[in-house]
Amino acid sequence: MGIRTAVAGASGYAGGEVLRLLAGHPEFEIGALTAGSNAGTELGAHQPHLRSLAGRVLAETTPETLAGHDVVFLALPHGRSGPLAAELGDDVLVVDCGADHRLADPAAWERFYGTVHAGTWPYGLPELPGQRARLRGARRIAVPGCYPTAVDLALFPAFAAGLAEPDVVVVAASGTSGAGRTLKPHLLGSEVMGSVGAYAAGGAHRHTPEMVQGLSAVAGEPVTVSFTPTLAPMSRGILATCTAKARPGVTAATLRAAYETAYAGEPFLGLLPEGRWPATSMTLGANTALVQVALDEDAGRVVAVAAIDNLTKGTGGAAVQSANLALGLPEELGLTTIGVSP
Amino acid sequence: MGIRTAVAGASGYAGGEVLRLLAGHPEFEIGALTAGSNAGTELGAHQPHLRSLAGRVLAETTPETLAGHDVVFLALPHGRSGPLAAELGDDVLVVDCGADHRLADPAAWERFYGTVHAGTWPYGLPELPGQRARLRGARRIAVPGCYPTAVDLALFPAFAAGLAEPDVVVVAASGTSGAGRTLKPHLLGSEVMGSVGAYAAGGAHRHTPEMVQGLSAVAGEPVTVSFTPTLAPMSRGILATCTAKARPGVTAATLRAAYETAYAGEPFLGLLPEGRWPATSMTLGANTALVQVALDEDAGRVVAVAAIDNLTKGTGGAAVQSANLALGLPEELGLTTIGVSP
Amino acid sequence: MGIRTAVAGASGYAGGEVLRLLAGHPEFEIGALTAGSNAGTELGAHQPHLRSLAGRVLAETTPETLAGHDVVFLALPHGRSGPLAAELGDDVLVVDCGADHRLADPAAWERFYGTVHAGTWPYGLPELPGQRARLRGARRIAVPGCYPTAVDLALFPAFAAGLAEPDVVVVAASGTSGAGRTLKPHLLGSEVMGSVGAYAAGGAHRHTPEMVQGLSAVAGEPVTVSFTPTLAPMSRGILATCTAKARPGVTAATLRAAYETAYAGEPFLGLLPEGRWPATSMTLGANTALVQVALDEDAGRVVAVAAIDNLTKGTGGAAVQSANLALGLPEELGLTTIGVSP
Amino acid sequence: MGIRTAVAGASGYAGGEVLRLLAGHPEFEIGALTAGSNAGTELGAHQPHLRSLAGRVLAETTPETLAGHDVVFLALPHGRSGPLAAELGDDVLVVDCGADHRLADPAAWERFYGTVHAGTWPYGLPELPGQRARLRGARRIAVPGCYPTAVDLALFPAFAAGLAEPDVVVVAASGTSGAGRTLKPHLLGSEVMGSVGAYAAGGAHRHTPEMVQGLSAVAGEPVTVSFTPTLAPMSRGILATCTAKARPGVTAATLRAAYETAYAGEPFLGLLPEGRWPATSMTLGANTALVQVALDEDAGRVVAVAAIDNLTKGTGGAAVQSANLALGLPEELGLTTIGVSP
Repeated sequence: MGIRTAVAGASGYAGGEVLRLLAGHPEFEIGALTAGSNAGTELGAHQPHLRSLAGRVLAETTPETLAGHDVVFLALPHGRSGPLAAELGDDVLVVDCGADHRLADPAAWERFYGTVHAGTWPYGLPELPGQRARLRGARRIAVPGCYPTAVDLALFPAFAAGLAEPDVVVVAASGTSGAGRTLKPHLLGSEVMGSVGAYAAGGAHRHTPEMVQGLSAVAGEPVTVSFTPTLAPMSRGILATCTAKARPGVTAATLRAAYETAYAGEPFLGLLPEGRWPATSMTLGANTALVQVALDEDAGRVVAVAAIDNLTKGTGGAAVQSANLALGLPEELGLTTIGVSP
Repeated sequence: MGIRTAVAGASGYAGGEVLRLLAGHPEFEIGALTAGSNAGTELGAHQPHLRSLAGRVLAETTPETLAGHDVVFLALPHGRSGPLAAELGDDVLVVDCGADHRLADPAAWERFYGTVHAGTWPYGLPELPGQRARLRGARRIAVPGCYPTAVDLALFPAFAAGLAEPDVVVVAASGTSGAGRTLKPHLLGSEVMGSVGAYAAGGAHRHTPEMVQGLSAVAGEPVTVSFTPTLAPMSRGILATCTAKARPGVTAATLRAAYETAYAGEPFLGLLPEGRWPATSMTLGANTALVQVALDEDAGRVVAVAAIDNLTKGTGGAAVQSANLALGLPEELGLTTIGVSP
Repeated sequence: MGIRTAVAGASGYAGGEVLRLLAGHPEFEIGALTAGSNAGTELGAHQPHLRSLAGRVLAETTPETLAGHDVVFLALPHGRSGPLAAELGDDVLVVDCGADHRLADPAAWERFYGTVHAGTWPYGLPELPGQRARLRGARRIAVPGCYPTAVDLALFPAFAAGLAEPDVVVVAASGTSGAGRTLKPHLLGSEVMGSVGAYAAGGAHRHTPEMVQGLSAVAGEPVTVSFTPTLAPMSRGILATCTAKARPGVTAATLRAAYETAYAGEPFLGLLPEGRWPATSMTLGANTALVQVALDEDAGRVVAVAAIDNLTKGTGGAAVQSANLALGLPEELGLTTIGVSP
Repeated sequence: MGIRTAVAGASGYAGGEVLRLLAGHPEFEIGALTAGSNAGTELGAHQPHLRSLAGRVLAETTPETLAGHDVVFLALPHGRSGPLAAELGDDVLVVDCGADHRLADPAAWERFYGTVHAGTWPYGLPELPGQRARLRGARRIAVPGCYPTAVDLALFPAFAAGLAEPDVVVVAASGTSGAGRTLKPHLLGSEVMGSVGAYAAGGAHRHTPEMVQGLSAVAGEPVTVSFTPTLAPMSRGILATCTAKARPGVTAATLRAAYETAYAGEPFLGLLPEGRWPATSMTLGANTALVQVALDEDAGRVVAVAAIDNLTKGTGGAAVQSANLALGLPEELGLTTIGVSP
């Protein structure tokens, strides 16, 4: 018998992606599926692509419906996961796809989210230095934000090796699913197709302090991040272009060597052959981050570009990968590195 | 009787956009249309949207077919415009949509293009300080590259007012028409739809020296530019995110005031109301650049984002706007600031 | 001084398209702009592409705000135009982009819309036989539905010449703007990009009786229509594939001749050269319908395919074209046949 | 040790999809990968999403490079598979994704393809009546065309139950990958994005005789098919709208019952709940056909709509499913019914 697993927020995009991966995973047995306003309807009305689960009826998201499972994945609006987790028992593995428990600094949380900080859980990005050990056996996991995942994976080798100045510029393009199934005019197909637009620029995006936290930890000193997110006409994918001044003496060869070393043995990280730059289509549906890095000698800058699928490596795949680690399963179980393309 | 006008390269995207605008312009009379390998075919086979010209047969691009016109627009591969222009007479207005005559520095040309520099023509970006006067009465015009247009318009107010350090980071998303009607696998619909990808990053893109030239002229000192272009799943549009360290003492108010001053009276530049960021759909088919700027106080950076239609303000519209100036016509004649949206 | 013109529903897609065309029209002077829940906000917050009108504040849609104009364009949910028009005076030209006054048969209206029929106004498709005369001098105009426009224009030459059996199959693809700025999950970019889906198939779509009405009038006998609409991943455009059994003796030559005759002299209709089939991109932003027709001899069927921009020839362009006729202006004034492409 | 498997045409879209599925299949061991003009290059240069195979070097497609395998998948231009298969040995399972061996009628082949007919192989659409048995133990398999797959699956229940007249109208939208990695202007992203267009209409498409063959076999009488293909702005997916006159006495209930019966027990066919219509996104990357059917009582027509992923159920998935059957493996092995969405 499998690991009894519940998914809260099953009618949304993040919940749907967790379910897509669980349905192909050999160890998880899918139990309760819950929702907010969609409770009482069939999953197939919201996630028609999840054929084998189409007839499942969504329960309400409550401690009672989520009780009795070994693992609970939460894909909820922020502010919801802390109280729920408190009622689920310390031995239940709770994997939170939301933001509530990512930040270590309460002041940063309060400044960007405007509510009381809920506490900090182990951060579900195993590839960051030292992070994998913290996830083994954990019973609470905070899945990283999709943008910070791309940015941290693009830059950690440079900072771990001391090759870049701690003043980072990030411009990232995201597919629209990153905003969830939110009914707002700017997310309508009519408005996003054929258009790339910026939003929350100038330091306003809530993922900024998460990038600062992740990169500062690797660098061992405070890192500033100028982050501009843009919305691109695609459903899935993040392409993050990340740049920082190269430290004196850095060469193209030392830079590449640092990335080769940092990525060696990482099943879900790929450094492209020199001269090839990543595109999001290379990672669609896969739990992969593909990266290229170059030294721009005229500008004196390290330029690293990462592509991920925001719903897979950026959300649902990271959740399953971290759950595998927490449960002592092989880290790659149920996850693929092969994208669906073209 | 109108101004007799020829278009060379009429079966390509840039030539098609010039024709779209000429067809709605009250003063130009469309004469010879020429092409390379498409000579002898009807324009409608290549540009079915240009209904009123669909039956026109394309001539070969030669000095003879282009002779006898008052204005010749060239939309040709680079290396072709210099020899052609030499045979067209000094009194003919030649507007070159290609790269040949944009750069002032022969060394920069040779490094990025690998051929002998063809010379420098007046630069068709009237909004740059001092540039409009150079275009009035000109008989040779180099239409700027699409990326440099977006970047220069996004940043010139900051540099003209001395508000930013001369070390710029640009990440820009472009629609696929920027690559022309080139038959390469990475430009196939199957590969670009649903995907954003980087290319020519790390300082390799040929538009980099053009940005350096334009911004350095405004700043009055050498500016470095780290430029990462990305290809986005849309036919038209450029969104350029441009950032540089703010000089000491710069405030959000001084920054905004500089942009308001610089854009005042410019018919084709728009500074969005505070808090709204540009998207390329706002400019589709229009000769407009829409910009927003903010001061990121945490990162200490000026962040300016510009949206243009790469084929209109980025190519064909700039060509017509500059031709209007050169010919003493009203600068706005035949051009609209209103996009086609959604 | 121009013709004083108001637009009700200015923050929606249809209203925005009417405004885009009015802004480039030499005779209309844009007066009141009104909205429902967006009243009190600036137009630029909803229609950032309409630069010259961006600062206009939207009034509430009431008889009072719409009073004092020579022409009122209504782009409202159905059920709203009848009462409003009753208060605007018989000498005011009211052009209704909604469905209320299109159908002549109250029973058809009630069956498909479930409310009391509001009456029938002259139908704003001047190209249909006899229709242009009814629009000259009219003071009430019902702008056709976007799908019926494409279907009627594709098939009227075949029915007018008696070449097709009165049993029609239509499958049409529409861009998402045809559904308006409606906040529903299936219209989110995440769900429409990369996907074509059917909806309201099997006879359920409200445009079906309008097609039946239009084609039956041309054929002089009752025509049945099997209509399947599909939603395609594009903002604008309709491609309607329309087929009916060929009557005995019909040849490819007689078929083509019928279309050449029917379209002769029509400024906004184009029959493509043989062998070329229409695509919606050929008509983007233009008031054009492009059509191809063929005789499938194996299947014994006439196959006609039409492409239009659903917001231009399918809504706003038809509204302006009909208004031109009603007001005695040149029918083509302010309208272009040239699309924005690629 | 696994089943030794080669893929010819590995750098194209069909070959890439076969490889994507083989890489996740527990029984196939991937051997030789071959190509035409791309021989000698790494697979990763063409299929960067196939991470685990990225370093494989492509061999030339010859009998020698393909020798020594248990199974050979051919994804080649038509005309190539017959001669190759002749040299591979009768005990090797050859699965041809091309058109060469699909048609039973040499005259139909010659009329539509203009070459000598290569012979007929068992048809890899196991869901058609009687077809599964012909595939068990087969050593030559012709994978169906993508359009006929969608059409046959949409209509076979109606014809098997005698509910429809043998005069079919099909209009189908396809993603651009259906045209392969072909370098033609109309397949460029700039031209397909934002546009739906018809092509090869009026009976000219080569998949027409294949539909006629498949549906006639089920109906037990000659069926005519009027087929209009359209190209839609998406990489993957086919949505086929199929309609035929209902036979006298057919009701909505008998129609639905026929589909429920026909699809019962079919792992890869899904009949949607009443009122929901298929969209291609529901099947992306899955070996699923999703269908809805309705009786249009006004028009007297059966309307069936099918969605598939043209590269999966329409090509690579059908190839693997059929190979599973031929080899005596479980039919579903290595195939998923769950799509990647949104």
